[in-house]
Amino acid sequence: MSFAAVDVIRTKRDRGELTPEQIDWVVDAYTRGDVADEQMSALAMAILLNGMTGAEIARWTQAMIASGERMDFSGLSRPTADKHSTGGVGDKITLPLAPLVAACGVAVPQLSGRGLGHTGGTLDKLEAVPGWRAALSNAEMLAQLDDVGAVICAAGDGLAPADKKLYALRDVTGTVEAIPLIASSIMSKKIAEGTGALVLDVKVGSGAFMKDADRAGELARTMVQLGTDAGVRTVALLTDMSTPLGLTAGNALEVRESVEVLAGGGPADVVELTVTLAREMLSAAGVSDVDPAEALADGRAMDVWRRMIRAQGGDPDADLPTARETEVVTADRDGVLTRLDALQVGVAAWRLGAGRARKEDPVQAGAGVELHAKPGDDVRAGQPLLTLHTDTPDAFESARRDLDGAWEIGESAADRPPLVIDRVG
Amino acid sequence: MSFAAVDVIRTKRDRGELTPEQIDWVVDAYTRGDVADEQMSALAMAILLNGMTGAEIARWTQAMIASGERMDFSGLSRPTADKHSTGGVGDKITLPLAPLVAACGVAVPQLSGRGLGHTGGTLDKLEAVPGWRAALSNAEMLAQLDDVGAVICAAGDGLAPADKKLYALRDVTGTVEAIPLIASSIMSKKIAEGTGALVLDVKVGSGAFMKDADRAGELARTMVQLGTDAGVRTVALLTDMSTPLGLTAGNALEVRESVEVLAGGGPADVVELTVTLAREMLSAAGVSDVDPAEALADGRAMDVWRRMIRAQGGDPDADLPTARETEVVTADRDGVLTRLDALQVGVAAWRLGAGRARKEDPVQAGAGVELHAKPGDDVRAGQPLLTLHTDTPDAFESARRDLDGAWEIGESAADRPPLVIDRVG
Repeated sequence: MSFAAVDVIRTKRDRGELTPEQIDWVVDAYTRGDVADEQMSALAMAILLNGMTGAEIARWTQAMIASGERMDFSGLSRPTADKHSTGGVGDKITLPLAPLVAACGVAVPQLSGRGLGHTGGTLDKLEAVPGWRAALSNAEMLAQLDDVGAVICAAGDGLAPADKKLYALRDVTGTVEAIPLIASSIMSKKIAEGTGALVLDVKVGSGAFMKDADRAGELARTMVQLGTDAGVRTVALLTDMSTPLGLTAGNALEVRESVEVLAGGGPADVVELTVTLAREMLSAAGVSDVDPAEALADGRAMDVWRRMIRAQGGDPDADLPTARETEVVTADRDGVLTRLDALQVGVAAWRLGAGRARKEDPVQAGAGVELHAKPGDDVRAGQPLLTLHTDTPDAFESARRDLDGAWEIGESAADRPPLVIDRVG
Repeated sequence: MSFAAVDVIRTKRDRGELTPEQIDWVVDAYTRGDVADEQMSALAMAILLNGMTGAEIARWTQAMIASGERMDFSGLSRPTADKHSTGGVGDKITLPLAPLVAACGVAVPQLSGRGLGHTGGTLDKLEAVPGWRAALSNAEMLAQLDDVGAVICAAGDGLAPADKKLYALRDVTGTVEAIPLIASSIMSKKIAEGTGALVLDVKVGSGAFMKDADRAGELARTMVQLGTDAGVRTVALLTDMSTPLGLTAGNALEVRESVEVLAGGGPADVVELTVTLAREMLSAAGVSDVDPAEALADGRAMDVWRRMIRAQGGDPDADLPTARETEVVTADRDGVLTRLDALQVGVAAWRLGAGRARKEDPVQAGAGVELHAKPGDDVRAGQPLLTLHTDTPDAFESARRDLDGAWEIGESAADRPPLVIDRVG
């Protein structure tokens, strides 16, 4: 069936509901190039401002899945579970989580992306490990899942190509923030990937894409519904992103912290979120008799980590890269650190070289921000608060400007929001 | 000053007001190609759905004017007045009006367009006159205005090129209907053209772009404000377009009817609207001592018409083209014609070959629809209601389908809406 693109746009512009046939046609025609970029961006803006019904979002997601290949893990001897985070500052959870869940008997096929803007990308982080490579063929990925139980690699071009094209368009047309389009973008890839269970970590707060819990909750419910309808056991947690996760934001810095967690140490919030998400993934995959906290403590998760890194060419024993220059930022008074803003730390880490401004830019493995205190901690005047790491010391001045007003030192600690704010599923 | 296009889009998406600098930048950058089509279409959709303030519309219009050249008629010995119609079925008023107003001592620089869709274009109609040509240089236009007093010709590429590019984009992205963009599109060209006075004929009803009087009134007020702010004495009439104007819709058919009006005859509604608009143009141009009804009756307007046609290579005495085939549609009962739908007649005329589906298509000079009765007229069963004219008789069947339900014959006439519904200015 064929439609005029302008009629599809007008329907949504005038607050109508798109028919299944219109959605199938417009997604397919856009992928083939028969609907022009300027038509799809007008439609995306109309969707952003006028919304979509649940039925429209489900069909849109199915159409994006149908634009590419689907993977199949049903031949594996283990159940599968995947995790997706909407992105936060210092969010390295995938690194300890994937081997931990694999150590508990559930295979983790984690297709990840690179960072753009102030939140880092999982692949950029792992590429700080000497020798490690992100690109695997589907056959290599399946073999590693079967053998090691965990794989973190780049998503191939075959999954949901419509999403790839649409995401690039939304990025330059101010239409990223449409919940129906965010939800269908994430879920089309996860459903096409073929995971049996999925846990969504929807970040809320200054460092997150969603600044308020209402919109984050709407996104979470939309995605859980899409996953469930597609036969994927799906759960979402809303988690705090008002302050960075752990004590590091940067590629090699975050790998080091992840290895600490796998060695039984590391910051309490990273450990808590890793174990909480692991429990959700195991439960969604139907495994209830294994305690991930034990698998973390007794080194089984670390064993999987080492095998996972090696399987992709990395050396788990190699020294990680460090930045050429560091600068310390100190506290200017005694008191309690009451606030340390996630967004500002993320922007500073990006400015120091941990992130990229354009897709084709390289990242610095050693760059980033190290935290010496977290909200709630006592601090003394002159004590180091942050260490800035970079290979390009010209960046220190602007990173310091980015951090202007990023923290407050008060008389007594304010209540910190709980790490896990809500659960949907 | 430079901006990121995505920030400008986000501002309007989030219901903010664009700054004058943002507007100047985005219109200029789009014209130069530095803002992509897909960015401008997303912005246009956000403008359509979230609106613009009066200050934003005024600045947008100024930015479009600044994208091209401005004309200047201040060297003429006569004042100038122009008319713009938002387009209707059978709207041939420009043809008798321009020579009539010129005959009354006011020069009429009428830059016109071609038809797309169910409303005809003034240039398409005049091109039915053997030899007549639409393209004039600015120098030729000025010389003709000075000599004859009236010129109807194609707008050159120099006026408001931003509008030309933006209009083509809006046409394919479902963003034509945004009142701020309609108003700035029309007014940027009229202000750049340099007319001293302007009368706007804003059509309301099924055959018009604006189906309801509320939106038509909003468009009229917006345009009058823009003109007045720019120093152009501007008045708008809201006029009825629920039924075709006059008794013809089609190119040569409408020229013939216009010549009848210039000869002192013609349908009452065409005469009434021509004289009413002439009075408004003369008054806006500061001429109050001449009665256009007299200039129509005594042949002075016809003299100017003949000189105007000749000045552009046309032969006012040549036979007009006729269609190769005709078919008559008859009334199926006795009674009073209570309704004859403008849109359906316009679509049928378009289908018969009077209009074009794509910009590059030719039109048939002789094609169209001739009316033998108007709402309020008594009709008898079997009497001709319409005659369909075409060179492509295959089109008769679909034109008849387009006309299905286009009229009603009742016991007594319903009140017809007045021809002039409202006046703004």
